[in-house]
This record gives sequence, C-alpha cells and structure tokens, in this order.
Amino acid sequence: MTRLKVYADRMSQPSRAVLLFCRLNRLDFDEIKVDISKRQQLSPQFKEINPMQKVPAIAHGTFNLFESHAILIYLATAFPRIADHWYPADIYGRAKINSVLDWHHSNLRHGAVTYVVNTVLAPALGYPLDPKAAAEAEKVLLYSLSKLEDVWLSGDGCFLVGGFQPSIADLSMVCELMQLEVLDEKDRIRILTPYKKVLRWIEATKAATSPHFDEVHNILFKAKRKFQEQRLREANFGTKPNKMGGLSKM
Amino acid sequence: MTRLKVYADRMSQPSRAVLLFCRLNRLDFDEIKVDISKRQQLSPQFKEINPMQKVPAIAHGTFNLFESHAILIYLATAFPRIADHWYPADIYGRAKINSVLDWHHSNLRHGAVTYVVNTVLAPALGYPLDPKAAAEAEKVLLYSLSKLEDVWLSGDGCFLVGGFQPSIADLSMVCELMQLEVLDEKDRIRILTPYKKVLRWIEATKAATSPHFDEVHNILFKAKRKFQEQRLREANFGTKPNKMGGLSKM
Repeated sequence: MTRLKVYADRMSQPSRAVLLFCRLNRLDFDEIKVDISKRQQLSPQFKEINPMQKVPAIAHGTFNLFESHAILIYLATAFPRIADHWYPADIYGRAKINSVLDWHHSNLRHGAVTYVVNTVLAPALGYPLDPKAAAEAEKVLLYSLSKLEDVWLSGDGCFLVGGFQPSIADLSMVCELMQLEVLDEKDRIRILTPYKKVLRWIEATKAATSPHFDEVHNILFKAKRKFQEQRLREANFGTKPNKMGGLSKM
Repeated sequence: MTRLKVYADRMSQPSRAVLLFCRLNRLDFDEIKVDISKRQQLSPQFKEINPMQKVPAIAHGTFNLFESHAILIYLATAFPRIADHWYPADIYGRAKINSVLDWHHSNLRHGAVTYVVNTVLAPALGYPLDPKAAAEAEKVLLYSLSKLEDVWLSGDGCFLVGGFQPSIADLSMVCELMQLEVLDEKDRIRILTPYKKVLRWIEATKAATSPHFDEVHNILFKAKRKFQEQRLREANFGTKPNKMGGLSKM
C-alpha cells in the first residue's frame, strides 16, 4: 500500500488532532498542506480526495477518508502496534470513547468553533463578526465546558471517561479547545478559569503528547501573537484588519 | 447480564433509530418511555442513566451508554448474530460508515432539527418560533440534502456509501429526515422533491425495515395529523397553539 497522505491545515483543530496522532504513533506519512486561507480546500484536485471540500482528509492507497473522528478511528485500527489506550479494543471502553466523540460534534465543537469565528476569525475568512451568534455560541461553549468538568472528567484518571492515558477523544477535544488561544487573552481566561479539571486535563494532554503537541500547535501560537498585535494596533490607532489579513501571512 | 433497557421517546428521531435497530435484530429489550413533552428526561432518576439528560440512552447490566450513534455501534457489535451490513467488520466499510455518521451531526442533523424546531415544534416545547434561525437552518438542511444526493448516495447500491443493504447510518439518517413529516406538507414537499435519490433511499429504507419502520414511526404520523389539524384551525379561526399543546396529547 502506498504511503499515507494526510491533507491538513494546522490552523484547523481537527487537522491538528489527526497530525498529532500520526506523530505520536510514528506513522509513516506525508503531510499535504491544504491552505484554508487561500481556499485550497475548494480546488478541484482536493475535491477528488474529499468531496465535502474540508480538511482534514486522508488517502491511504486508493482509500480516501474524511471526518476527523472517522480518520482517527481508522488510523488507530488499521495500523499495527497502536497502543490500546488510543481506541480501546474492549467493547465498553470503545463505546465510551465513541459516546464522547459523538457528543463533541453538537456541543464542544459547535460552541467553540462558532464562538471563535464570530469573535475573532470571521474577518480573516471574509465574513463580518456576528455578536448575536457569538453570544449564542458562548452559551453552548460554557454548557459544554461544564459537562466536560462534571461528566466526562469525573472519573479516576485525568483523561476523558476516566482514562489514565489519553485516547483519540482527548486529542480531538483538547485540539478543539486550543482554538481558544486566538481569543483576546482576558476573554480566554474568563471562559476557561472556572473549569479546574478541564484546565488540568489540557495540561495533562499536553504533557502526555510532548513534544509533538507544541510542534503541531506552533502555527496557532503564531496566530495568537498576530491577533494580539492586531488588537494592540486597533487599541492604539483604531485600525481594522484587512480581509484575510489575520491569517494570510502566517 | 440483565435484559437491555432502552430509554426513549419515539418523538425523538435518534430514539426511533435505536428502537428500530433493536426491533429489526429481535434484541431482547425493554423500552422505557422518557416523555420529553413532560420533561421526564430532566428527572433525577433519568440523570442516573444519562447525565446529559437526553434520549436515547441504554442500560445493559451495569453499563450505561448515551449518544445514539455510539449506542447503535455498541448494539451492532456487542450482541451475537447481528448481520454484518449493519456495521461492517471490514475496516474500510466500517470507516465509511463512521464517516457518514460523523458528518450527520453538524450537517443533516443540525439543519433538520433546527429547521423543524423553529418552524413547527418550538411552541410545543415552550419556546417561540425563530424565523431567522429557521432560515439559517434551511440553508444547512438543503446543503446536507444536496450532499446526500451527490456524495453519500452516489454509489452502486441505493443505501448510503453505496450499500446494497442498510447500515446503522441509514437508520439514523432516515429517522432524522422523517422528522420533516411534522412540517406543513407543502413545505416538506418543496424541501425534499428536488432530491430524487434521497426520496428513493427513504423508500428503500422503509421497505427494508418494514413492518417495524411504520410501527416505530406511528407516533410521528399521529403528530403530523395533529399539526395539520392545528394549522387548519389556525387558518379557519386564527387560533394559536397552547404551550405544550401540540405534543402533550399524543
């Protein structure tokens, strides 16, 4: 079978989760950048790989796959010698990981993406900010954080569903929360500070996946600095960002 | 192990998908009604089963599980003699089913639920209708239907991802679309008619799951008639529905 290809943009949180899994498990793969800020995901070439025109996607021989959770499950089960904790073979452990992955879509992901887009990223993607959508999304995000704290992180271990080692769900959901790095720092702290277990879990996942975690998130830390500088300029001179200006030079 | 318990409200589309799977595969189970119109999902007793306080959920011995896709995967793999087409053991077939199930959450489900709630169900659930949210949701719903038509139903068989027999994804997504039955009939026809493969797929899934499909959907057909009668009364006399009135007597 030909070498695995991972089509990704590291500014996309599910792309980072897939890349992180590949790095952690030393998979033999090529990372192919699909630059969202240049709308490369809409190209006819990429549509052949993923007809939904979104990242991430993989090609493994003649087999193409998209949707990051499905990709993570495929990688964890198709490649040899992947440690069991990533996606347990035990039917009950696996069911719990499936449950948290499913829950993610309409809760943490929906809340975090919509909030970040409508408070920071929209102008860089060519849309106006929408404060009403941001307010609605904040409710979903805070609800999701409270359920992470009280339900998913209520077990014995410090990872999701009580795990003592991280699973693909930890990668997916911590990468999601890392997207909050591009928020105004005061806003990010206001949102996350009440959730002590969530904060410990993020740190535990970072530690368990070091040094790959920082390597995969480097672009996001650069973006964070760019947005901070931009806010400072706006505060000092009242200038507004150009369309695409926030992302295109990263 | 004690007998499987399925906590469900047949007015909820993921509840119907789980019940339909159980019936089709002749699982030995008890259906326990959690009446959403009476807010029974918020009871402390049910919170013990599902801390997210949503239906469906299952209890199988001491093992509790929620999120309908995770439940369907668990049932298809935990019980003996379940036909392979429901959730293929083959890694590629399984990955494709996982992909369409993941896609469902933020696309067809998000669009259909938000549209139906904001055009019909909201008053029965104690909320006002929101035409702006309905308009946004309609875009997601129509986009999802076009992707169902052009991507997921583009294979050789008439089921999702080219299947010749239905999978758990067909159950989940046809049950989702059945929720459109409560719309004004003209509106439902306007939305679905352009998607010929989708219409054929709904009929193929109904036929492949008969007579259980109609049995599980009976409550929805009753609701459809109630909403039709209500619309007729409103057109004739200008009366508005009571809070909870649309659902509580079904």
